[in-house]
Amino acid sequence: MAASKAGQHHQHETNTPSDNLPLVLIHRIPQFDLSYKSWLPATKFRLLDPLDQSFSSTPSAQTLAQSARLLLCLGPSPLTQHTLDRYPSIECVVGSSAGLDHLDLSDCRRRGITVTNAGDAFSDDVADFSVALLLDVLRRVSASNRYVRAGSWPVKGDYPLGSKLGGKQIGIVGLGSIGSRIATRLEAFGCSIAYNSRKKKPHVPFPYYENVHDLATNSDVLIICCALTNETHHMINKDIMTALGKEGVIVNVGRGALIDEKELVQFLVRGDIGGAGLDVYENEPVVPRELFGLDNVVLSPHRAVATTDAILALHKVVIANLDAFFSNKPLVSPVELE
Amino acid sequence: MAASKAGQHHQHETNTPSDNLPLVLIHRIPQFDLSYKSWLPATKFRLLDPLDQSFSSTPSAQTLAQSARLLLCLGPSPLTQHTLDRYPSIECVVGSSAGLDHLDLSDCRRRGITVTNAGDAFSDDVADFSVALLLDVLRRVSASNRYVRAGSWPVKGDYPLGSKLGGKQIGIVGLGSIGSRIATRLEAFGCSIAYNSRKKKPHVPFPYYENVHDLATNSDVLIICCALTNETHHMINKDIMTALGKEGVIVNVGRGALIDEKELVQFLVRGDIGGAGLDVYENEPVVPRELFGLDNVVLSPHRAVATTDAILALHKVVIANLDAFFSNKPLVSPVELE
Repeated sequence: MAASKAGQHHQHETNTPSDNLPLVLIHRIPQFDLSYKSWLPATKFRLLDPLDQSFSSTPSAQTLAQSARLLLCLGPSPLTQHTLDRYPSIECVVGSSAGLDHLDLSDCRRRGITVTNAGDAFSDDVADFSVALLLDVLRRVSASNRYVRAGSWPVKGDYPLGSKLGGKQIGIVGLGSIGSRIATRLEAFGCSIAYNSRKKKPHVPFPYYENVHDLATNSDVLIICCALTNETHHMINKDIMTALGKEGVIVNVGRGALIDEKELVQFLVRGDIGGAGLDVYENEPVVPRELFGLDNVVLSPHRAVATTDAILALHKVVIANLDAFFSNKPLVSPVELE
Repeated sequence: MAASKAGQHHQHETNTPSDNLPLVLIHRIPQFDLSYKSWLPATKFRLLDPLDQSFSSTPSAQTLAQSARLLLCLGPSPLTQHTLDRYPSIECVVGSSAGLDHLDLSDCRRRGITVTNAGDAFSDDVADFSVALLLDVLRRVSASNRYVRAGSWPVKGDYPLGSKLGGKQIGIVGLGSIGSRIATRLEAFGCSIAYNSRKKKPHVPFPYYENVHDLATNSDVLIICCALTNETHHMINKDIMTALGKEGVIVNVGRGALIDEKELVQFLVRGDIGGAGLDVYENEPVVPRELFGLDNVVLSPHRAVATTDAILALHKVVIANLDAFFSNKPLVSPVELE
């Protein structure tokens, strides 16, 4: 009786209004919190975070987690098979990044779990940033800015000439929502566009190259904005860089491991390619120090997605996916699981 | 007889094939030579340069200069009334820069001298560079590049968010061949364009503001790309910067003195405007040192025109103007002298 009473008492205490709300299981590593409590409305969703202090000390919370149908993965927090084993009721993983290489997509497919990503929330900003990196490498904005700030202009005279963007042959690797926006922007600068992707896209006016090697051979610039998968890991290797040639420029806003970074560093240090604009690296936040002294390289700290507007757009798309899932409507930004 | 013979002998010696070629009087200050001897064909033009050592020691060269009908002004070499007084036969001044604030245009008009500028040779490159500066200020490319190179990323964590370019209200001051190209590019990024110029342009779809103050009030960004004249000197003053507001960004690819530089520095240091991308300064190559520590400022050393392609395009337009003048055809890039 006493035990039963205590149980009832406990149930009464935790039976708050949020108990009836749709349950969102949060998945994150400590550094990716995205301040979710500030923008996910606690009036609409019951948020359950295994990293919350109360979680491990509350057996009912752990039982509840096992009944969760939806998992919200914050940022690029790695989501392993092991984690999914612990939450057998998960039907949908809502992601909050453009790339999903931190998820095991084929495992999700096997389990019948649907997955969403950031959709178009970041696409404009990443496309803008890609153009910014390319312009910076060609026109030496950052490097000449350093030159001015070092006081060199009055002492050493004119900074060397840059290279014109207009007329350049641009090879886009991955013509998705980001790549197609990069194409629109660069056409306005008078560039010619060609692309590589898994399949030729219907209704796209640009020349398609079935392999990246041929695209590189025919391009002045390669812009890498495809997904990182087993197939695309180190896709930009020694052969591709050789095909791109001594004047060629690489811009990477996808993932660091799309490029064989050690080779890229060697090519840049030896001057075997013309330059690079890099926002992503194989071992972030570590950036190869050999690049720090090079003026034909622009190094940004994974900031292509990072604007206030993009963050707000991400919040919108995440909430829209949660709403859609819990009302049995089509998800807003589902990912094709091949 | 002996004197006459000597005279004949002298005439014979200097009567080279080039004597019959059209005479081009070079005007330059020592630092602006533009390597003209490497690209002006000596087989087509007789080049007379008062800075050549032989010039001052050859009385016939000085006499010849007075008969020159065309003067080629290299770079922004100041061309004063005093210089033109010395060359009374000049009918045409061929310029080799986009801006002509180093010439006294009203004096040229009074003398009936026609003037040409660089035409469209630089327009694409200056437009590209303006977009590069704007993207850099908004998305913090140079600043985050410094952050990476300083080794701060692994130590201090994520670099702060930037601001989205798309959706920004852009005010273009001077919708000429450069300004209109900036508009085309920024429309592809999803920006809204408005402009100020001396007169409303026919067939231009963008809102026109008769004064810069109203344009600034209604803009997130001001891009300055008009000519420097008595009327536009310090056009961007305290009032305009106040109207632009605390989040506003200024990009200047025109001339330094279009902006009251001392005020601009104060506004930036106090945080009373949001940022600036500056390619030109009032007292080049001197750049105000107060700006060197600011991360919301991008400082390039007058490089908006500086690509190999633009230089080749300039050579073409200069030679085309020379050809046109000497064959009595319409000049390729005449400047309207109001």
